[in-house]
Amino acid sequence: MYKLYSMQRSGNSYKVRLALALLGIPYETIEIDILRGESRTPDFLARNPSGQVPLLEVNEGRFLAESNAILWYLAAGTSLAPDDRMDRADALRWMFFEQHALEPNIGAAYFWLALVRGGRDLQTHSLEDWMERGYKALQVMDNHLKDHPYFAAGTFTVADIALYGYTHLAETCDFDLTGFPAIRAWLTRVEAVPGFVPMHWRPGEARSQATPLAAG
Amino acid sequence: MYKLYSMQRSGNSYKVRLALALLGIPYETIEIDILRGESRTPDFLARNPSGQVPLLEVNEGRFLAESNAILWYLAAGTSLAPDDRMDRADALRWMFFEQHALEPNIGAAYFWLALVRGGRDLQTHSLEDWMERGYKALQVMDNHLKDHPYFAAGTFTVADIALYGYTHLAETCDFDLTGFPAIRAWLTRVEAVPGFVPMHWRPGEARSQATPLAAG
Repeated sequence: MYKLYSMQRSGNSYKVRLALALLGIPYETIEIDILRGESRTPDFLARNPSGQVPLLEVNEGRFLAESNAILWYLAAGTSLAPDDRMDRADALRWMFFEQHALEPNIGAAYFWLALVRGGRDLQTHSLEDWMERGYKALQVMDNHLKDHPYFAAGTFTVADIALYGYTHLAETCDFDLTGFPAIRAWLTRVEAVPGFVPMHWRPGEARSQATPLAAG
Repeated sequence: MYKLYSMQRSGNSYKVRLALALLGIPYETIEIDILRGESRTPDFLARNPSGQVPLLEVNEGRFLAESNAILWYLAAGTSLAPDDRMDRADALRWMFFEQHALEPNIGAAYFWLALVRGGRDLQTHSLEDWMERGYKALQVMDNHLKDHPYFAAGTFTVADIALYGYTHLAETCDFDLTGFPAIRAWLTRVEAVPGFVPMHWRPGEARSQATPLAAG
């Protein structure tokens, strides 16, 4: 069985948990609290030298890091991965966009505003940059979603899972999505996909009994 | 024939040109000078709403953005893409690492120190962060390369092309690679791969006649 090193409140970890739930793949979770330095212990660094979650133990001692690489691995051969070469490239185009345009900005704002107590006072200068660049990324997404129901291949794929992770957290860290109607409609579409589970859901729980995760 | 929107001095554009040269794929280049705003014109934004190079026109009117998504597309079915599912995931793991840990730091330092006149004075505060995070990424790479000749699948793949792009520019923007012997040996190995072309090479030129591109 897969072993997933994950933090419940991490958007990157949630992306992988959402894919596993949608695919109905059983797995064991090991909770790593990065705020308590648990991703920086010698044991953890031996498993992932980048010191980050999520981390998937694919087989005994065989680890895979990077949320989007894990998504791609899990989706291989399933309906979540497009078949066509160009559609696959489009999905990856949006997944790379996610990791350099969306996650570093909304993810950083989320970390400091929603997870770290007092983060707002510590990060005043950087926050302005994250907000500005985060809004730019959201605008690119909204423009695309005006003409497309999903990000790649005209259907729900791993690219949507990758982008949902932090987009759905944007409003917990001061982003206002009022001006992005196409994104809001897409968020609703993703949440209606059969098998969808919210971020706070834990494997084994009835999907309807999941208790909301307080932001902050 | 593929049409590549590219900037000669962009590391991200070079990654794609290197893959095209290694694969012997003919293509037409359209030079886009991002320092003159040529990636921000209405025409260009209609092709790539992210306003970035490289951009590959795969077919008439069908565009693919994101350097690493383009690499993955071009490598499909060639020796540059691993066959094995786990090796493929490993290659992507390093390509996502490149886009969030290496490129935003070395790429930003390169942009401001090597490309923009006076960039050092404009970016004093951010430079410290880029240097610190860039060195962290280089350390993760060096540790990996101590035990592995290349990044994935035990052989030269698109992951090496992705990481070579900005790693080989590190010394043009104040990074000191003396303390990273495994990286230096890997750079030499990549440069010895048959068909390798340096950043300043242009299609049609004899590979030995390429004139070095001045940094800055």
